[in-house]
Amino acid sequence: MYRTHTCGELNIQNVDENVKLSGWVQKSRDLGGMTFIDLRDRYGLTQLVFNMEKNEELCREARKLGREFVIQAEGTVAERSNKNPKMPTGEIEILVTSLKVLNASEHPPFTIEKDTDGGDELRMKYRYLDLRRVDVRKNLELRHRMSIEIRNYLSDEKFIEVETPVLIKSTPEGARDFVVPSRMNPGQFYALPQSPQTFKQLLMVAGFDRYFQIVKCFRDEDLRADRQPEFTQIDCEMSFVGRDDVLDAFEGLSNHLFKAIKDVEITEKYPKMPYSEALDRFGNDKPDTRFGMEINDIKELTAGKGFNVFDSAEYVRGICVEGCAEYSRKQLDELTDFVRKPQIGAKGLVYVKYNEAGSFKSSVDKFYTPDDLQKWADAMGAKPGDLMLVLAGETALTRKALSELRLEMGRRLELMDPDVFKPLWVVDFPLLEWDEETSRFHAMHHPFTRPYEEDLELFKSDPGKVRAMAYDLVINGVEIGGGSIRIHNEELQQQMFDNLGFTREEASRQFGFLMGAFRYGAPPHGGIAFGFDRWVALFAGLDSIRDTIAFPKNNAGRDVMIDTPSTISAEQLEELFLAVKSPTK
Amino acid sequence: MYRTHTCGELNIQNVDENVKLSGWVQKSRDLGGMTFIDLRDRYGLTQLVFNMEKNEELCREARKLGREFVIQAEGTVAERSNKNPKMPTGEIEILVTSLKVLNASEHPPFTIEKDTDGGDELRMKYRYLDLRRVDVRKNLELRHRMSIEIRNYLSDEKFIEVETPVLIKSTPEGARDFVVPSRMNPGQFYALPQSPQTFKQLLMVAGFDRYFQIVKCFRDEDLRADRQPEFTQIDCEMSFVGRDDVLDAFEGLSNHLFKAIKDVEITEKYPKMPYSEALDRFGNDKPDTRFGMEINDIKELTAGKGFNVFDSAEYVRGICVEGCAEYSRKQLDELTDFVRKPQIGAKGLVYVKYNEAGSFKSSVDKFYTPDDLQKWADAMGAKPGDLMLVLAGETALTRKALSELRLEMGRRLELMDPDVFKPLWVVDFPLLEWDEETSRFHAMHHPFTRPYEEDLELFKSDPGKVRAMAYDLVINGVEIGGGSIRIHNEELQQQMFDNLGFTREEASRQFGFLMGAFRYGAPPHGGIAFGFDRWVALFAGLDSIRDTIAFPKNNAGRDVMIDTPSTISAEQLEELFLAVKSPTK
Repeated sequence: MYRTHTCGELNIQNVDENVKLSGWVQKSRDLGGMTFIDLRDRYGLTQLVFNMEKNEELCREARKLGREFVIQAEGTVAERSNKNPKMPTGEIEILVTSLKVLNASEHPPFTIEKDTDGGDELRMKYRYLDLRRVDVRKNLELRHRMSIEIRNYLSDEKFIEVETPVLIKSTPEGARDFVVPSRMNPGQFYALPQSPQTFKQLLMVAGFDRYFQIVKCFRDEDLRADRQPEFTQIDCEMSFVGRDDVLDAFEGLSNHLFKAIKDVEITEKYPKMPYSEALDRFGNDKPDTRFGMEINDIKELTAGKGFNVFDSAEYVRGICVEGCAEYSRKQLDELTDFVRKPQIGAKGLVYVKYNEAGSFKSSVDKFYTPDDLQKWADAMGAKPGDLMLVLAGETALTRKALSELRLEMGRRLELMDPDVFKPLWVVDFPLLEWDEETSRFHAMHHPFTRPYEEDLELFKSDPGKVRAMAYDLVINGVEIGGGSIRIHNEELQQQMFDNLGFTREEASRQFGFLMGAFRYGAPPHGGIAFGFDRWVALFAGLDSIRDTIAFPKNNAGRDVMIDTPSTISAEQLEELFLAVKSPTK
Repeated sequence: MYRTHTCGELNIQNVDENVKLSGWVQKSRDLGGMTFIDLRDRYGLTQLVFNMEKNEELCREARKLGREFVIQAEGTVAERSNKNPKMPTGEIEILVTSLKVLNASEHPPFTIEKDTDGGDELRMKYRYLDLRRVDVRKNLELRHRMSIEIRNYLSDEKFIEVETPVLIKSTPEGARDFVVPSRMNPGQFYALPQSPQTFKQLLMVAGFDRYFQIVKCFRDEDLRADRQPEFTQIDCEMSFVGRDDVLDAFEGLSNHLFKAIKDVEITEKYPKMPYSEALDRFGNDKPDTRFGMEINDIKELTAGKGFNVFDSAEYVRGICVEGCAEYSRKQLDELTDFVRKPQIGAKGLVYVKYNEAGSFKSSVDKFYTPDDLQKWADAMGAKPGDLMLVLAGETALTRKALSELRLEMGRRLELMDPDVFKPLWVVDFPLLEWDEETSRFHAMHHPFTRPYEEDLELFKSDPGKVRAMAYDLVINGVEIGGGSIRIHNEELQQQMFDNLGFTREEASRQFGFLMGAFRYGAPPHGGIAFGFDRWVALFAGLDSIRDTIAFPKNNAGRDVMIDTPSTISAEQLEELFLAVKSPTK
């Protein structure tokens, strides 16, 4: 037996007990007559004591132990004279009577402490050491607790977890698939699922009524920050539901998680904000509603005063930053630099200071009178002491830039309290979105999303205006999940494929099985999928999903710890009937 | 709103309530004045009633509904005159006042009933219809309940579920990997995991102490009956444990599942049977111990009597089949045919009838006297009325054939009660097994299995005799899981790779990250992995794992419903820097 207790459970009740502990040497202090060692395991730290007078030999052995040695120590629990109230085991220590080294350790490449001296690359290479750090482990413990809570909640709500296949069929729609050559079917490939979308719909056709799965999904995308080639979804689907049935069901899940994990009670219904309103008021479709500073349209008020930048712009809108009229030249320059960054892309920034005294000072005083600016202030709800920031230009780009500026101001003014959670549903997304590159409409969500009945006639006249029964769950500016009511009727599904420019043959080859299924009594159904990694990151207070994942890949899709991807043998390629071509060809 | 209730919940308490139900038409009966429809959903069946007198139009509409139509019906709950006590809803029916067809259905290709008329192939092609059959759905509901019980039990026992990566590194050891070409790393490949073995060991090095995961694993094998290219494991690992700590922990899990799912209380400790004993007594390493009929060695007793078949055989052993001395010529011929089947491979069968009167009648009376046969009977514990069956030949093959014969007799005599469960641990597997093809030793389990310390010296003299700290959980002749205590020491791991014929370079390239990890304080650890599909099949009383899987592949690794694997586009191949070679080349 390696231990009688873990390193996190002994306390004053255990004094005088003989115990055995195993764990890692966190640190050791040699005070001459005494040597103290903090022994660590997943459950905590316990102080071991070695005494030169009592047992010189043992004490000398203890002094030789390096950091991260794995040891086993037997001894008696004693009350500490110098208690540490911050540690659960801080009232006791172990007077060690025997010691065994279970495994030695080389000096680790970085310190295994809260604030480590290891850089990103080094920590990824030795991920198994990085995972020893309490903060990293806590994220994975949180992830585990969330998955247990999700599963039990959904199971109690009669959802059945069904495993859908990982080796499926490649469909060129959407992002790129990872493919898997089939040795038994030469020249043919499986694909890894980007989501179990069609399978969960088939489960509804099969009468499963309520399905969920916490499941790995795969996308072969050029990795931007915070994307992983494999990620985890909480995938859900329900039958005989309208939109609000789905939203109510998953508001229940979300509220349960907030209560069980964060001890946050959310009692109000989540607001439902149409996509168009979200863009209007916040400049994006995942608004952070922890603070206001909403976007105001002043295009009309700015027109015809000789300021060509505004006159020629589609979009002239601004935000009112409360109490910042005193911003310095330097601060305003910083903001201008911010909006001009390539990833933001605005050309410049117009500011108007509404001074405490009631006067205005702006970067466009040449063109606008105080009366003009007063009208802006009225439109933006600005009062003396506030700062107005205005951007102008082409709608989509400028709107996005203004949204980024709003978030930047929220950060600067600390309006984004990490302990406040503001969930909402963004609804009524457009069904289709125009793709410049291919000059055609694509499904914004996926081709199985149901359009509103009353919008169907717009298909011919103004396809971009057709609204979908689609929805996203947004919390604090993060898109946590999205879904839709699906098409369950073969004709409408066929019409969708037609509208998306699929030939009948393509549609049938790729999705014939689903349309076939619709012929045999498909119920109305809809669902949602949540980004599990992102939800964990939100609850853990992390900006990136990377530390919610035990063994993440880097931005080149590589696992630097195990060094993969890597070449495979000629025999393997031969068996798969494949040849690798030179990339330079 | 599509429904106020499901089809499984209305009863006599609900009489006179106005309700709305949605579901599938299971069947309809037209009795002239009345039409009855059984409406089905996942939760049950409810009888709908339409009355020609009360509402002729509605009744005529109802008569038009075909099987598997999806409908919505509103009406009043009424007490049935003709109650059906077998159905939870059998005391009531719905007097329908309005009816809506939500989706029509073509005539399904096979009947959606317990006993369907659909063949295997057809049911796989229309799997979404097959899944509507109650028995198939029940298997998946069982699977869900088992997964919930497993997760909650292990979580309560402080195991953390950690998701390990799916895109990992190809290692030629063991079965064939499925590989995934990397577009971002031309000419390089990921592999899909055959198990998360090395990752769970790294989690132990990381101090996670207790890990589990219910996880998809992949093996590119030529599919035999009841193998799937993707299958699900309950993968577990623990730190600071010896063998019996692991066995105790998972006996706990197993007992919990028996109680929670099958309402079977197992109070005795599971027997631990060494591998060599299992082979000796039962002829294989996964003995079905629901019945005796053990194997007895009679080599010595048969020698030197002029029967060359026995004299020249390594292995002469038999089983005693109780009370079957009366077997007819035809029955004995059937058994001879059975052992001669190519998959069994014995050359012939010797029988000895120990007649009720005390005389013997055997197929070898020419060579053996009644006294000789009496000695056999004594050795086998046979008594008058019993039948002795003896096989002889080369050890491994004959042992396997005798084991199959024993199981066949168990089936014929109905000794394998499906409601009796006899779990046991098979322990002390050989570390290495000789591979004729490559003329070298392979790891029987995997190269990370720890050998018994006292056997280490056999490595040089008799490697096949080295015992591993490995174990299997066997229930009713089915191997439900297997695991081992692992090597946690770099030198021993290196020695293992040396013994297995890895060059230092190969070992380092493939498993360098693990041996590296062992340098930084690896704790003693061990674990187990259970075949989840098989465990579900055992509890469901299924012979095959296929119906524990929602969307299984066929024996050629194909999903005939979605028609995959399939060809991919030239653009996809181009992007991956791959060319498909002709298989005939």
